Amino acid sequence: MHIDIEQSILAKNDSLAASNRALFAEKGVFVLNILASPGSGKTSVILATIEALRDEFNIAVIEGDIASSVDSEKIKAQGIAAVQINTGGACHLESAMIKRAIDVLDLDALDLILLENVGNLVCPTDFDLGENAKVMILSVPEGDDKPLKYPGVFQVSEAIILNKVDTMASFNFDEGAFTDAIESLNPRAPLFRMSATKGTGVDEWAEWLAGNIRALQRSQSAQATS
Amino acid sequence: MHIDIEQSILAKNDSLAASNRALFAEKGVFVLNILASPGSGKTSVILATIEALRDEFNIAVIEGDIASSVDSEKIKAQGIAAVQINTGGACHLESAMIKRAIDVLDLDALDLILLENVGNLVCPTDFDLGENAKVMILSVPEGDDKPLKYPGVFQVSEAIILNKVDTMASFNFDEGAFTDAIESLNPRAPLFRMSATKGTGVDEWAEWLAGNIRALQRSQSAQATS
Repeated sequence: MHIDIEQSILAKNDSLAASNRALFAEKGVFVLNILASPGSGKTSVILATIEALRDEFNIAVIEGDIASSVDSEKIKAQGIAAVQINTGGACHLESAMIKRAIDVLDLDALDLILLENVGNLVCPTDFDLGENAKVMILSVPEGDDKPLKYPGVFQVSEAIILNKVDTMASFNFDEGAFTDAIESLNPRAPLFRMSATKGTGVDEWAEWLAGNIRALQRSQSAQATS
Repeated sequence: MHIDIEQSILAKNDSLAASNRALFAEKGVFVLNILASPGSGKTSVILATIEALRDEFNIAVIEGDIASSVDSEKIKAQGIAAVQINTGGACHLESAMIKRAIDVLDLDALDLILLENVGNLVCPTDFDLGENAKVMILSVPEGDDKPLKYPGVFQVSEAIILNKVDTMASFNFDEGAFTDAIESLNPRAPLFRMSATKGTGVDEWAEWLAGNIRALQRSQSAQATS
């Protein structure tokens, strides 16, 4: 809900987000906020990312859902720490929820936290969680016109994943129109074509993310020795 | 956003929704509120519904989107009156937006208004627009676990459409698990299997909707003659 009274709520959220961000920086953890519609493959992208990066980095996952723990169970089955947040109706994660969730994680031992937001292309856009970067996932079955209809989420994301590209033939998806729309909304964000469940395109994405994590770690160790 | 202060907003919305509902009843128009994720095929279902029912009923469409008018243009291309609401960031339609939109429609000439809500499985659930019924659409690519994650929207809907059933083979969709979850959340809602773009299952859905419209018209003409 985007309404006038939101200002004070956003201000409170931003303040706690700043405190989360300071804690993440102190502990040297890179935090990624993952935004997408329901069913676009967030959990599959997370599982593929874990598989690609777990040898180099220590990873944990925070799962946001209205209800259920089906996603965090899938993550735990891979031997990865996962905290489930049930928002109980709320359409997005807030920084206060993240603050409570990280209390149960050993931040000193972690390099990367993946935050799976509630499936929603609108509301999570406005709520800073203290993350280092936002990434959004659109899946091919959702259609190439989504940047026109939901421009905000495409604009705030540092990277964009187009998932389920293996199903392109089954859907009337105009990839040129999609790429043009992305170019005009957010020309600096890299676009990764992926099929997370088939493994296609995961390496390019994982390399981008690993590069960001290594850059953070280098800047931290430079600070520590200076 | 589901927060404490929402009560007064919901109360104001409900009051205007009641006024919309009274107007629709006076004019004998059946109003359907259509809820779904982005890209689940709301506009395709609307186009298929128009095709199936336009010989019997006079139809108009109100399109809700954050931005753009791509959907209302598709409807108008079929020779059907369409009003585009751009919510400018808001994650759901509200009754005040509908009140303004119907000012430009000739309600006396209409039998059916289809309201396409913003693509969002969470926020629209709480906002009564004055409709006669809510229908929700889930598409196969979104996955069979969505009733567990977004129970509210499955519970408030008078009917449920499972769209894009032609793509079942490309996705790991457990139809038995999906049907069981629906049964436990909302045993009274009929479930329509559909591929709106291929025309599969449209007749059964259109017959259910036509039956509801005819029942409304019969009760109205009975009131008028009593």
